[in-house]
Amino acid sequence: MTMLDIKIELTTKPKEKPAPDELGFGHYFTDHMFVLDYTEGIGWHDGRIVPYQPLSLDPSAMIFHYGQSVFEGLKAYVTVNNEALLFRADRNFKRLNNSNARLCIPEIDEQYALEALKQLVSIDREWIPSAPGTSLYIRPFIIATEPNLGVHPSKNYQFIIIMSPSGSYYKEGINPVKIMVEEQFVRAVKGGTGEAKTGGNYASALKGQQIADKEGYSQTLWLDGKENKYVEEVGSMNIFFKINGTVITPALNGSILPGITRDSMIQVLKSKQIPVEERRISIDEVVEAAHQGTLEEVFGTGTAAVISPVGELKYLDEKIIINNGEIGEVSQMLYDTLTGIQNGKIEDTFGWTIRL
Amino acid sequence: MTMLDIKIELTTKPKEKPAPDELGFGHYFTDHMFVLDYTEGIGWHDGRIVPYQPLSLDPSAMIFHYGQSVFEGLKAYVTVNNEALLFRADRNFKRLNNSNARLCIPEIDEQYALEALKQLVSIDREWIPSAPGTSLYIRPFIIATEPNLGVHPSKNYQFIIIMSPSGSYYKEGINPVKIMVEEQFVRAVKGGTGEAKTGGNYASALKGQQIADKEGYSQTLWLDGKENKYVEEVGSMNIFFKINGTVITPALNGSILPGITRDSMIQVLKSKQIPVEERRISIDEVVEAAHQGTLEEVFGTGTAAVISPVGELKYLDEKIIINNGEIGEVSQMLYDTLTGIQNGKIEDTFGWTIRL
Repeated sequence: MTMLDIKIELTTKPKEKPAPDELGFGHYFTDHMFVLDYTEGIGWHDGRIVPYQPLSLDPSAMIFHYGQSVFEGLKAYVTVNNEALLFRADRNFKRLNNSNARLCIPEIDEQYALEALKQLVSIDREWIPSAPGTSLYIRPFIIATEPNLGVHPSKNYQFIIIMSPSGSYYKEGINPVKIMVEEQFVRAVKGGTGEAKTGGNYASALKGQQIADKEGYSQTLWLDGKENKYVEEVGSMNIFFKINGTVITPALNGSILPGITRDSMIQVLKSKQIPVEERRISIDEVVEAAHQGTLEEVFGTGTAAVISPVGELKYLDEKIIINNGEIGEVSQMLYDTLTGIQNGKIEDTFGWTIRL
Repeated sequence: MTMLDIKIELTTKPKEKPAPDELGFGHYFTDHMFVLDYTEGIGWHDGRIVPYQPLSLDPSAMIFHYGQSVFEGLKAYVTVNNEALLFRADRNFKRLNNSNARLCIPEIDEQYALEALKQLVSIDREWIPSAPGTSLYIRPFIIATEPNLGVHPSKNYQFIIIMSPSGSYYKEGINPVKIMVEEQFVRAVKGGTGEAKTGGNYASALKGQQIADKEGYSQTLWLDGKENKYVEEVGSMNIFFKINGTVITPALNGSILPGITRDSMIQVLKSKQIPVEERRISIDEVVEAAHQGTLEEVFGTGTAAVISPVGELKYLDEKIIINNGEIGEVSQMLYDTLTGIQNGKIEDTFGWTIRL
């Protein structure tokens, strides 16, 4: 794909921006969106920024039938110095291409996508909320649009970026969550689509989430699909355990999403000389550590919450309380460091921030 | 859900019908479609038959992001006596509800759906092609339409039925296909969504299909996701092996699609006193039978092809030729019986046909 011009059509009816305390997550959308078409034989073409508007698709468009789709999630922030920045956006487009490869979707030009995103954010710059903890959530996604019921990779796609001003995930300080280990249902398996960011993984996970909800737990802890023994992810986040001073997170094995926040956490831990291991960890090892009193902290990581400390873990009939149900020291440090880099209070020595 | 009236808006611009030899599969669509909305707190409502038209959805509609969708596939036929009939449509809507349960989609009223389908087919009755081997392929599907990026079951859905006149799957007699066992990628695993008819399963399977294509094979034979040892499905069909006079098909284990054609084949076999077993069968057992000369026939079953005989099976570095690459006696008998019931040449003693 060659570097294409991006046509820009600005809205004539700018929407009213919601109040900062009404934002929530993923409810409101900015005035513009980016769209890029793919046509077999032509490639990606007609990149454009247009007013946010409905998609019109034939009912036989393949996205409605065979789930061929990928997406990303990242954020833009306003710093304390009123600068707008993106966080590791290059990594998101790299991962999008990894997902594309698994889902048989043609790859995008990562540099072009980043350039398009920068232009889009610049145009909707005033939509980035500035209250503490708020941000502009960005959702790039690709859908199969060929109007055909045959089961094969689509010949047409749309790559779209929409953006949603989002509220603080933690309105009254960080509240640890209660999670339960899912025993019946499986999110992903080696050889499946677990390491790709594709709709089917999330659809598959809804049932476990529903069971957790009913039992009063806010997230599901997923075990591997082969042996139902090794820890994979929690909800739609990666998971970390601090056991006896060492932070352990499941190694990327093909069925775990390679989280960008996960990677950032590992780098921060290393920079602070806190021992960190990426390896296979069984649920039995976690329970055993809890029994021995060495399970010091548990936390999930992801773009939305940055960190989600786990205060209670249910496995079979046992309920394990972690760190008295409070956020741990390392979790708090990681949260403060990452959000500090994102809001410009802490110098970015990692080269993660992209200024607009 | 109570029995609702179905509003009917007929097209003012009927489309030209394609020539029978140009039909192919899933390319052309009839003049009308059925649409039913779901709104949380209200339930399914506003059932209507309208001119075939694009769907207009917010870019944040959940179907584009989290893959919450289910579908069905069935056919309407014109018999040799010029009657229109549906084949086991009640089973399709029952299975749709089973898929709904796995995907956290509210259940539909199966009787109402069948009634809606009958009305739709009656209105587009002239779109059912009548040339030998042709039929009207029917695609009911449900998509999550809530405009929200939070990961949770959608609060809004659309249940839609579209219909596509389809050509003969076998234009020049039944040609056996070549299939290869996939070793790296996995379609589904116990605890996942394998037994539901949902987009993610098909998206996940594209990669294996692409590999098979490159090696000159037309379908992928999927093994189980836990041990990569037991046969599950072939392509998007169920699979049967005739070994030493007995027909064996993998038992429904939670990760295999409960095919309606599969069930029909089992019933036909039983009615003909041909031994048939639903049980776990390893790929090693199949290869062993081939080596011993007792692997007599292999065939896939599904709505599109009815039967797809397998002439060659590749596993690891071995290529196994089945029945000299020709369709077997039992395969031919099953094909003739099922298509005979569908086109009215054979009396339906099973109660499978639904006359309009």
